[in-house]
Amino acid sequence: MKKTLATLVLVSFAGAAMAQQALKPEEMIKYRKAAMNFMGWNMGKIKANLDGTFNAEQTLAAANAIAATANSGLGALHGPGSDKDVGGEKTRLKSEYFQNQDKVREVAMNFNKEANELAKVAAAGDKAAIQAQFGKTGASCKACHDNFRN
Amino acid sequence: MKKTLATLVLVSFAGAAMAQQALKPEEMIKYRKAAMNFMGWNMGKIKANLDGTFNAEQTLAAANAIAATANSGLGALHGPGSDKDVGGEKTRLKSEYFQNQDKVREVAMNFNKEANELAKVAAAGDKAAIQAQFGKTGASCKACHDNFRN
Repeated sequence: MKKTLATLVLVSFAGAAMAQQALKPEEMIKYRKAAMNFMGWNMGKIKANLDGTFNAEQTLAAANAIAATANSGLGALHGPGSDKDVGGEKTRLKSEYFQNQDKVREVAMNFNKEANELAKVAAAGDKAAIQAQFGKTGASCKACHDNFRN
Repeated sequence: MKKTLATLVLVSFAGAAMAQQALKPEEMIKYRKAAMNFMGWNMGKIKANLDGTFNAEQTLAAANAIAATANSGLGALHGPGSDKDVGGEKTRLKSEYFQNQDKVREVAMNFNKEANELAKVAAAGDKAAIQAQFGKTGASCKACHDNFRN
């Protein structure tokens, strides 16, 4: 079965239909913050490599971690009720997330595309190309934050 | 330059020599808990797939996320001072981590090996093989927890 990138992304981020786990809203918040912080650490590593001594192997490992996180089905961590602080977990997710699914799909698909491209470019090892794609990936993170994070 | 798996793992987990980022102990704690929670979510997804309706694509995405996390250089998140609660971040890391680096290397190398094997087996898609390798991966997580987590 051939699937387009768009289909894969819809399933992996914007949709939660595949989720086998029954997660409480507080678990969604906990795990998605873990995913975001984990990506933040890896983005920081790539930035440090671009700004300082460039280590291609560390940069690739970080890019692979970001892409695998993007591909891990983060949509399942953005279910109903997870836009409110609950069960000791605090969240910055705006309720608009549930009211504008077209925009969610747009920013999610773009993020997945840029993150996977970053891993591809990092595997090739050209620092200037990585720098350019790192910028695009960061912008795709920011697009979601600007729209859906308080 | 040819590198053995052992060398790569030493660099990526047990050693922090490659780290370009200057992280405070509280940042190490924050990011490593993020990495652990993120892997926990993905392990839970694989378990749910093995126990319930098996979706090969979701299982592979989760296994890839765990392997990429294992390969992301977690050793850099276990630096001096990160075995104490600090800067509002709580940790369960035992101080023994810094006193028994041989054991750290052993459990870290084994975890990386099993996590990468899980991604390989998940790509092949055989449920029984994934079940067996999932057990080995979980055991390799537990070995570190038993030795170095309060």
